[in-house]
Amino acid sequence: MQPGGKLEITLLKKERSGWLSTCGLPFALQGIYDIETTEITKAEEFLKQGVDFRTQTEAVELNTDEKSVRLRSGEELRYDFLVIATGRTPVLPKAVEDAMNNVKRVHTFSNEEDAEQIYASMRDAKNGFVRGRGIIALQTAVAFAKRGIKTTVLGGPPSLLPSMLDADMGDILKEYLERNYDIRFILERKEIKALNADAEGNVRSVLVEGADGEEEEIPADVVVIARGFRPNTELARSAGIETGESGGIITDKAMHVRKKGKFLRDVFALGDCVEVVDAITHKRRLAQLASAVLVQARVIADNIVSEISGEVRAYSTYEPCISPTVAAIGGMLVGSVGITSEEARRNGIKVLAGKAQKVSKARYFPGAEKINAKLLFDAHSERLLGAQIVSSAEGVAERINELSLAIKFGMTAKEICMNERCYDPSLALLKDVFVDAAENALKA
Amino acid sequence: MQPGGKLEITLLKKERSGWLSTCGLPFALQGIYDIETTEITKAEEFLKQGVDFRTQTEAVELNTDEKSVRLRSGEELRYDFLVIATGRTPVLPKAVEDAMNNVKRVHTFSNEEDAEQIYASMRDAKNGFVRGRGIIALQTAVAFAKRGIKTTVLGGPPSLLPSMLDADMGDILKEYLERNYDIRFILERKEIKALNADAEGNVRSVLVEGADGEEEEIPADVVVIARGFRPNTELARSAGIETGESGGIITDKAMHVRKKGKFLRDVFALGDCVEVVDAITHKRRLAQLASAVLVQARVIADNIVSEISGEVRAYSTYEPCISPTVAAIGGMLVGSVGITSEEARRNGIKVLAGKAQKVSKARYFPGAEKINAKLLFDAHSERLLGAQIVSSAEGVAERINELSLAIKFGMTAKEICMNERCYDPSLALLKDVFVDAAENALKA
Repeated sequence: MQPGGKLEITLLKKERSGWLSTCGLPFALQGIYDIETTEITKAEEFLKQGVDFRTQTEAVELNTDEKSVRLRSGEELRYDFLVIATGRTPVLPKAVEDAMNNVKRVHTFSNEEDAEQIYASMRDAKNGFVRGRGIIALQTAVAFAKRGIKTTVLGGPPSLLPSMLDADMGDILKEYLERNYDIRFILERKEIKALNADAEGNVRSVLVEGADGEEEEIPADVVVIARGFRPNTELARSAGIETGESGGIITDKAMHVRKKGKFLRDVFALGDCVEVVDAITHKRRLAQLASAVLVQARVIADNIVSEISGEVRAYSTYEPCISPTVAAIGGMLVGSVGITSEEARRNGIKVLAGKAQKVSKARYFPGAEKINAKLLFDAHSERLLGAQIVSSAEGVAERINELSLAIKFGMTAKEICMNERCYDPSLALLKDVFVDAAENALKA
Repeated sequence: MQPGGKLEITLLKKERSGWLSTCGLPFALQGIYDIETTEITKAEEFLKQGVDFRTQTEAVELNTDEKSVRLRSGEELRYDFLVIATGRTPVLPKAVEDAMNNVKRVHTFSNEEDAEQIYASMRDAKNGFVRGRGIIALQTAVAFAKRGIKTTVLGGPPSLLPSMLDADMGDILKEYLERNYDIRFILERKEIKALNADAEGNVRSVLVEGADGEEEEIPADVVVIARGFRPNTELARSAGIETGESGGIITDKAMHVRKKGKFLRDVFALGDCVEVVDAITHKRRLAQLASAVLVQARVIADNIVSEISGEVRAYSTYEPCISPTVAAIGGMLVGSVGITSEEARRNGIKVLAGKAQKVSKARYFPGAEKINAKLLFDAHSERLLGAQIVSSAEGVAERINELSLAIKFGMTAKEICMNERCYDPSLALLKDVFVDAAENALKA
């Protein structure tokens, strides 16, 4: 701390950019703007504000007893408070891990360097291959398709975005992408067996093998692997900081890390490398969403201020997480919050499901677009546990935020039906699609 | 009731249309579609479904002891259950009430006949005059302006939409309408003193007088009066049904009407003619919104079913009302829920206010539009009591619905700041404008 109570802040970042919107990168590949646009605040801006923002700098050792961090350069920094935000690393299929260093134009997609490399590989590509069926995978596939690259997506069963959508909802998105972007989906238990390269080492095809041993060779001159991420916890673990069953760093509600069974008041962790508690299943899991990080960051900032100032009012907690999620996949908007039917099944929760399709504004109003909604309620209490939307109309993010509160406050299907909603024929229906879905759940 | 438990339903409607979207009429005047388009379901469709839907039919007497309704034609109908939905009537300034029958091209705006007459008067009009500053008044003014009619709007102080917006938020809308539609606003304590007509009886100018006696003559060849409505309760009152201090019909939570201090199990009322309880002030007031009627209609339908079937589960109640409201006024979207600063003041509620202006999606994303938000929190509990949005971006209706739940469930400013929201740079910000507004309220 500086005299006068002003915090001296040092920020270490492995990549070369300042504050970058990783979520903005797939849209850059789609040609909506340049990759550089996603750098929201340059490192120099932070420096001007008095933050010692160090890019291309890596911490290689933490010592929570000495309260110090050692950098790859050998430099040692001391801290009063330490925040660990080491992020995540793509999980690669075995065959890809082996080939990654030898075969060119095969990429993972985590940061701006990856985006630049994918962009370069896309330029003269005719055939694209994406491994994964999550948001990044699908947004990348759309970027390929938009640039005229014939694209194959290899995911698993049963459909797209399985952590967000039930298969029936995922299929609406799948059919949309097949129809509008001519993307081929392989959603079976298949994995990449080999990456074949030409004489220059550039990838030429992907050999895919099914569980039954059946093989298919798929032409590809650009490959992106986006099938999941594991939390980066090596640095924390080597300092004795504990991780949980999900692989993420364990924290308390204040985001303090734990070492030898004790939470450290001066070391916090957040983001893709930490474990959160699921608000519905009460199990520990990863969140890996920018929206979760934002709240965790506020909690940590409040708690550091509270610790320094002694002001109890500033103290904050991170509450169990329901992960409201939204994504634009081409022209289709997808949103989800709470649990899916599959997660409910895995956790032994019996649900009532209700589905509906409806327009976004009065049916006589020009420009009305279709929204598909599915709501899941606890079969006994009839309280909302999950919501899914696949829509060609706007307003998905805002609906998911509303449904997120409905889950948080335990609204029942009937309460959703009886809740007054604002209406203007050019903007909204008297009875929204998800009110229909709630009604249908009660009829089910 | 028919044998087999099927209800025989008779619906009496004074106007000539079937189910009409009154809220859709101003958009017809703006040229977005024909007036006929707003007839969502024709009377014949109801007849086909077995509903005795009678248009241009008026009930002139109710007898709750005899369980009968007498029509203007003299016919007498008997009922098991009666639902009163007699709506509202425009409140006219004294001078207009007197002139209304003699001066042509002076209109109120309640139904499709009014819309047709206004439309006819607009055709060759050069100067338009609107008395009122509510949603219908402003949407009508925009319709005039869109058709090249120079328009003056006479409201009262301090700004536009005072039941929805504080003056600072109303002024954002006012400046937008002045700039984009060249509408002149007179927002002082002035009233129409006289309507001047030409030899054919067509209105030519409006004489406006201030509280100080100052007069101004404003040219006008079409005039619309839309300054407020009173509930139509004559029919109910003449049957001994009680009305409250707001002038609306008193009901219990089941929407039963009251007669001689006793709620009648077989007579219900809903809509613009009934009184509701305000969820924040706990005072009785009018709601006069389609969104409130929808929920009241469900409550009544459930309770009739419950009464007939004896199934307690079907029984429903209408809860105190927070009136989430949204309106498109030209290209600007306005939303509101809960109380305004003025209502808080009148009710002795001390509030913390927070305002913010922000874009609707990542600032680097093309097409981001500005949203203005203002939140009002109880100064002691810091719970949300009111929200106001004026925005050129979509998503206002959905945000108001979310904030409506935040009020309902008593969220505090800090809880709003700490609530996780979904994020995609093309659709939403990590930190929404109203989260900034909540932060600003806490700083205030």
